[in-house]
Amino acid sequence: MYNFLFHIPTKVYFGRGQISHLGELSEYGKKVLLVYGGGSIKRNGLYDTAVGILHDAGMEIFELAGVEPNPKIETVRKGVEICREQGADVVLAIGGGSTIDCAKIVAAGTLYDGDAWDLVLDGSKMERALPIASVLTISATGSEMDRYAVISDLGKNEKWSTDARCLIPSLSILDPSYTFSVSKRQTAAGTADIMSHIFESYFTTEPAADVQRRIAEGLLKVVFKYGPVALNEPDNYDARANLMWAASHAINGLIADGAEQHWCVHPIEHELSAFYDITHGEGLAILTPVWMEYILNDNTKGYFADYGRNVWSISEEDDLDASKAAIEKTRSFLQDSMGLPSNLRAVGIMDDRYFDQMAEKAARSTAATFVPLTKEDIKEIYRRAF
Amino acid sequence: MYNFLFHIPTKVYFGRGQISHLGELSEYGKKVLLVYGGGSIKRNGLYDTAVGILHDAGMEIFELAGVEPNPKIETVRKGVEICREQGADVVLAIGGGSTIDCAKIVAAGTLYDGDAWDLVLDGSKMERALPIASVLTISATGSEMDRYAVISDLGKNEKWSTDARCLIPSLSILDPSYTFSVSKRQTAAGTADIMSHIFESYFTTEPAADVQRRIAEGLLKVVFKYGPVALNEPDNYDARANLMWAASHAINGLIADGAEQHWCVHPIEHELSAFYDITHGEGLAILTPVWMEYILNDNTKGYFADYGRNVWSISEEDDLDASKAAIEKTRSFLQDSMGLPSNLRAVGIMDDRYFDQMAEKAARSTAATFVPLTKEDIKEIYRRAF
Repeated sequence: MYNFLFHIPTKVYFGRGQISHLGELSEYGKKVLLVYGGGSIKRNGLYDTAVGILHDAGMEIFELAGVEPNPKIETVRKGVEICREQGADVVLAIGGGSTIDCAKIVAAGTLYDGDAWDLVLDGSKMERALPIASVLTISATGSEMDRYAVISDLGKNEKWSTDARCLIPSLSILDPSYTFSVSKRQTAAGTADIMSHIFESYFTTEPAADVQRRIAEGLLKVVFKYGPVALNEPDNYDARANLMWAASHAINGLIADGAEQHWCVHPIEHELSAFYDITHGEGLAILTPVWMEYILNDNTKGYFADYGRNVWSISEEDDLDASKAAIEKTRSFLQDSMGLPSNLRAVGIMDDRYFDQMAEKAARSTAATFVPLTKEDIKEIYRRAF
Repeated sequence: MYNFLFHIPTKVYFGRGQISHLGELSEYGKKVLLVYGGGSIKRNGLYDTAVGILHDAGMEIFELAGVEPNPKIETVRKGVEICREQGADVVLAIGGGSTIDCAKIVAAGTLYDGDAWDLVLDGSKMERALPIASVLTISATGSEMDRYAVISDLGKNEKWSTDARCLIPSLSILDPSYTFSVSKRQTAAGTADIMSHIFESYFTTEPAADVQRRIAEGLLKVVFKYGPVALNEPDNYDARANLMWAASHAINGLIADGAEQHWCVHPIEHELSAFYDITHGEGLAILTPVWMEYILNDNTKGYFADYGRNVWSISEEDDLDASKAAIEKTRSFLQDSMGLPSNLRAVGIMDDRYFDQMAEKAARSTAATFVPLTKEDIKEIYRRAF
């Protein structure tokens, strides 16, 4: 097991009605920037509930609305400006990962002497941030409990993940019933995102990260059990609750710390979203089985066989056979059980003209992953996914 | 899944050499009470290392030495007195669970207007405590990351567990190499303690606590794999590291929150330790299989069958058969693989004269457990364990 620092300071109130604790935000100060997306929280009443609680706690509210699904740096800059002008004490996101990611860089950008895009390109520049809180409305990115944020400058086809410990939310409200209204398509995409987060840590070159790998297998089992249930019974509380809590643990450090690994499929997907603005989880669903097949070899078959046996109860004795069966199970889960797209054409990517450029950018992040990938490897993965 | 608050503020530095971070304690203030046990940390150099780092950080050190294996309230009172007289800012335990538990109640007792025993009898009286830190030297109780403390008044045969969120350590140093010198007997007892903590949450009446139960199964697998390795190869780093990290997660809230359950085997064991001062983990090792057999019935067999299939890969199709096989595996692990005692006589309990009195006290805590137990049930468990 590698050396690590484990520290998740987030206070998570989990369950029905836990939004009643939102007034605790006033402990951080009386001025809150409320960040949200397209306005669905206004239609379903969550906005009114939250605003009512914040008012009762004596808080003054400023707003940053209209955060995009792939949040833009321009929106972050707007939030920073409001925070500075109004002297915000705390930033509260109500929404999914995009909204929370945006709120995070707003919180850090407000205390940074320079342009917020610097922080996206270089996480080490973030030493402090305003306290961050979230009310989660979709289970996917795990941003409610992690130190990451992904921000785009789509004008330049740039989409980067950045991270810093000061971005970990101080308080998150996780009420699974808020995700009942998440569409089938977004439920499936979110599930693919959770899976990919788990895989990015699970496939580690550290063989003795047993605690982390066994927990990861447990989380995968939960996702495979409840993903289809949530798809077919949107208001099944147990399914939504288990997906929500698995999503947070998939990326909060629990399965990564001590097994630390550079991520691989995520940076390859980020180029798809940056160039084509596709849904992140759908891109991951397409790439994951292709990536698994591409890196399967004599060195990695033991890992895939473990995965197959421990998660899918595959009984093949030969490691390579067990690996292939495990990858097939994964593909079938994504495409058959969750109805996710199986290739890039299915999400509207009809030509390969950017593959070279995308692969070059992705390769900046894949040199030290579980199986290191070059630009040529990544191009080949895009081609096989096409 | 039940509603819950998940909050583990502990900053854990895990791995070889992580004691270098101990100087961070000075952020809490310059005066530290150093709490330790029988002096083994002086013989192995850990004391000198820690004191050197604290001095370099400009800290002034006071000492509470000689904490007992079942820490006594008298020792706690002594610590409280020192803290008050010297104006301590932070309490640092170097040792195992007993030492950390003692430090916790010292930290809370210092800020409590009354006798520290009140806090053992009623955790709700603890609203604040001095910041608590630990350097762990044995993997067992999980006190380094949890909100519990067990304190005894052996003069009155009293041993109680108490808890409060303010008892969660702020900083813990977990260096697995510090546990290389733990004796075989204590390694085995610690492993039984870890197992029991996992079981106390794993056997929950909340059927949809999947995230928690799947993680618990992962931790159990780790314990079953590495317990015997640590026993036979005391300086196997991977074994010690996995046991150490599993021990912390067994009780830090990860597998309990959302599956909340009142503990059962622990209170039954606490009476054994309170009346006979036996080693806690040995008492648990004796009681656990007896308890499992005692509560196995048509209502519980599904839970034990899950345990057998998911943790021990038992293939029996009938739930009752699978349950019995799982309990037998558990017994065999404890007694054959770990060399733990199989009955009360083996730890020197040669008569049953206190069973009635012990059962009466234990029954105060077992009315709402996985399978509720009466005084008569507990007496019968003691008898079968005899």
